[in-house]
Amino acid sequence: MKEMEIEQIKSLDLNDPILIEGLPGVGHIGKLAAEHLIDELDAEKLYEIYSPKLPPQVIVSKEGVAELVNLEVYAVKNDEEGRDILIVVGDHQSVENEGHYEITGQILDIAEEYGVKEIITLGGFATGEIVDEPDIYGAVNEESLVEELEDLGVKFEEGKPGGGIVGASGLLLGLGSRREIPASCLMGETSGYIVDPVGAQSILKILEQILNIEVDMQELEERADEMEDVVSKIRQKKQQAQQQQQQQQPQPTQDDLRYIG
Amino acid sequence: MKEMEIEQIKSLDLNDPILIEGLPGVGHIGKLAAEHLIDELDAEKLYEIYSPKLPPQVIVSKEGVAELVNLEVYAVKNDEEGRDILIVVGDHQSVENEGHYEITGQILDIAEEYGVKEIITLGGFATGEIVDEPDIYGAVNEESLVEELEDLGVKFEEGKPGGGIVGASGLLLGLGSRREIPASCLMGETSGYIVDPVGAQSILKILEQILNIEVDMQELEERADEMEDVVSKIRQKKQQAQQQQQQQQPQPTQDDLRYIG
Amino acid sequence: MKEMEIEQIKSLDLNDPILIEGLPGVGHIGKLAAEHLIDELDAEKLYEIYSPKLPPQVIVSKEGVAELVNLEVYAVKNDEEGRDILIVVGDHQSVENEGHYEITGQILDIAEEYGVKEIITLGGFATGEIVDEPDIYGAVNEESLVEELEDLGVKFEEGKPGGGIVGASGLLLGLGSRREIPASCLMGETSGYIVDPVGAQSILKILEQILNIEVDMQELEERADEMEDVVSKIRQKKQQAQQQQQQQQPQPTQDDLRYIG
Amino acid sequence: MKEMEIEQIKSLDLNDPILIEGLPGVGHIGKLAAEHLIDELDAEKLYEIYSPKLPPQVIVSKEGVAELVNLEVYAVKNDEEGRDILIVVGDHQSVENEGHYEITGQILDIAEEYGVKEIITLGGFATGEIVDEPDIYGAVNEESLVEELEDLGVKFEEGKPGGGIVGASGLLLGLGSRREIPASCLMGETSGYIVDPVGAQSILKILEQILNIEVDMQELEERADEMEDVVSKIRQKKQQAQQQQQQQQPQPTQDDLRYIG
Repeated sequence: MKEMEIEQIKSLDLNDPILIEGLPGVGHIGKLAAEHLIDELDAEKLYEIYSPKLPPQVIVSKEGVAELVNLEVYAVKNDEEGRDILIVVGDHQSVENEGHYEITGQILDIAEEYGVKEIITLGGFATGEIVDEPDIYGAVNEESLVEELEDLGVKFEEGKPGGGIVGASGLLLGLGSRREIPASCLMGETSGYIVDPVGAQSILKILEQILNIEVDMQELEERADEMEDVVSKIRQKKQQAQQQQQQQQPQPTQDDLRYIG
Repeated sequence: MKEMEIEQIKSLDLNDPILIEGLPGVGHIGKLAAEHLIDELDAEKLYEIYSPKLPPQVIVSKEGVAELVNLEVYAVKNDEEGRDILIVVGDHQSVENEGHYEITGQILDIAEEYGVKEIITLGGFATGEIVDEPDIYGAVNEESLVEELEDLGVKFEEGKPGGGIVGASGLLLGLGSRREIPASCLMGETSGYIVDPVGAQSILKILEQILNIEVDMQELEERADEMEDVVSKIRQKKQQAQQQQQQQQPQPTQDDLRYIG
Repeated sequence: MKEMEIEQIKSLDLNDPILIEGLPGVGHIGKLAAEHLIDELDAEKLYEIYSPKLPPQVIVSKEGVAELVNLEVYAVKNDEEGRDILIVVGDHQSVENEGHYEITGQILDIAEEYGVKEIITLGGFATGEIVDEPDIYGAVNEESLVEELEDLGVKFEEGKPGGGIVGASGLLLGLGSRREIPASCLMGETSGYIVDPVGAQSILKILEQILNIEVDMQELEERADEMEDVVSKIRQKKQQAQQQQQQQQPQPTQDDLRYIG
Repeated sequence: MKEMEIEQIKSLDLNDPILIEGLPGVGHIGKLAAEHLIDELDAEKLYEIYSPKLPPQVIVSKEGVAELVNLEVYAVKNDEEGRDILIVVGDHQSVENEGHYEITGQILDIAEEYGVKEIITLGGFATGEIVDEPDIYGAVNEESLVEELEDLGVKFEEGKPGGGIVGASGLLLGLGSRREIPASCLMGETSGYIVDPVGAQSILKILEQILNIEVDMQELEERADEMEDVVSKIRQKKQQAQQQQQQQQPQPTQDDLRYIG
């Protein structure tokens, strides 16, 4: 395989669809949220995208069946008379610089084919600390999009995120702007150390309002409880380490504590 | 050289051949097993594959003769009226992401030219510990292939391998599936630290059944004995280190022991 | 996006323009100086250059608006009857080897379109130590350019810079020479550890003479004062560390002091 | 610049030329030897080779003049009725895998244009220890070449070099073989830590015999003396460190000594 290959699985007529992207990234928040939408809304697969700029790898299912790493585009038909949804998910992002541009261009080609006039990309940004109630921060490719998102509780603060947005979630805004497709990125606060179903839920609550849908969160809540156990064990270990240090070293400064905690 | 170059060394009529791939990878199990097959079955070289995506390097023989890094395709004519065998070996895999896709595509082109309807790729997966009697784990690109392999003793367990299969051994399944060629991957347990002729033998025992052949293992057994010496020295050193630690530090936990051993 | 894209924002007639390049690099001296010129001289944007060899990233403004990473070419019309100026700035350099050649080639295409007969690239070179009054070192692509720069106080010393000049600032000289466009590189001494507005000012003082303009330095001076605070804190910490070391280790050698300081 | 560019500086009729390659590598032995030949034999420059797969960099001369990183091909006309010489040198090798293949292909194109029927590539291989009288090891792309080189004192030993030959020195043998041009590689033993004019001299002594020329070694001897000073200082420091260790730690084993020395 020398070039990207697009395999069409199914064809559907979609009504004014909005495109949601949730590829792997910080805390896997976007991936968790987008995959949860696909499961809960019984989305149907439209496309598989294969590319030699994805990792040279297969993923093995629990039955032992290997699947070539790819991106997938799903569609959700809205039962009511509302807008339909396109959802982009995948196992990996490009491992090469140029691949990000090429694959994002392909996603935008599909978006244009379906007349997409709004894109929402999902991601996380790392705070370095465990966050109990993660805020959702936003970025847009047209300033006029800010107000509506702020009304939904999305925060816009200078320096969040500081280093820009890397990968498909960022490029869909940047390249989308060059094709005049309005696009927003929702980023859930997350430690950056663990897969974060809490952050994914926070993002889905915003999406529920934007898409005018209801999403059953039970499965994500269960995964969040599991992660909670992991996190509390990590915290205990850190506190123990901290106490030992305090016994060994007379006066830890405020700085040290912040560093440990 | 700007593009891959295929040099045909010999032309042979093959009867319903099965393709075996054994390129370098974890524990070099696939490479050892495939090269052993070539030696023991007096395979004949059909093709050399050169590519600028292989390392820019020559391998120097013990006579001082340099050979450009390449992949080679060998054939074994079955004396009985059974199936013939194509064997792919090489000094290196691609050093570039896209090269894996390109080279695997080339191997599949050759496979299709010979009407290959079954592919078996050989590899190892690292356990991190020395394994005395390595199990063979499997992955397939069609679920129907699982049962036959399980009957031969190949294990299918969720999370083995966890991270998928990287390189040609994985891509032949993934890209093979897109060309509708059934393919399986056999992975021998191995520590991951050393070249492992024991794992290679375990895989060959499965292959003997699949290919309905007998393979003299003597040479691999000798190499395994050599490695055994190396391994037992490593083990002794580790035990000594462990004992010293026990004398210095009062109570090592079970965790520490596992980490050392 | 598979190829570089040039977007023309505005068209201007320019009189014998000189091209100034200030892309990110050591101490961000070139970037600071070039961006300061754009602000102070009310430059107008002529081009945006997008490339899949730039990082796959958007930069988010303080209003939350994401902009695709790009290079920009600005123009300054000289009010007097003197020469006009083209200024190349950007968020990033290429992340790929070949991208540097491709993007520099594009800048030279634009330079040739406007009849540019002189290029000045701006950069820093790291001394590893904080420099209070940075010298400006030069490199040229035609030996005849040395004398004029020396008259302006630019230094030419063997081994400064030792390892050559990497990136657009170097390639504009090298590739410019192949197109017979005279080009010079001005490099301000800088520690290499911090963004350095002092170095940027030193370079701008040379540029004022070359371009026969006056530039208000106030904003850079304010940023320099801020950095001064940062630097003096670092120095204090180092001195404390030094004193502690002296108390612990009897006789530090001159070498040690240089290493710390 | 998107593609390799070849600039012809001069045209010369050459009599049955032998091509010598000395690009940067282990101990810079090949580069030192080839550049010394160019200086001592008053070679004339025929070609400059530029490539976007070379580093994006200029080298600055002591006069401050920047030269784009390139490869150069020189020619030496033999005053007697013997064979002429082509010499390939350069500041850098390719920084990209494929670039090595492309650039070596270009060198072979030039070799074929001049009817080259013998190639000698120059390099070093690292022993990890300082070698007083370095042996020269050989590799060839046709077994028939071994004997003549052995008669000149070149050694052929299994496992030297163990890991093959990387870069242009290796590829000229490997790709040369595919074009049926006999080629040998001469490798001088060297520590691998320092630029090594002693190794370069040893290689030149072999080349003197092959090319039937005499080369004044004075400049290399001076550089060797300078390096000798550096090396003896390093040795003294190591001995001191060793003695200090012996005082601190009761019984250093033979292993430790070898590791230090």
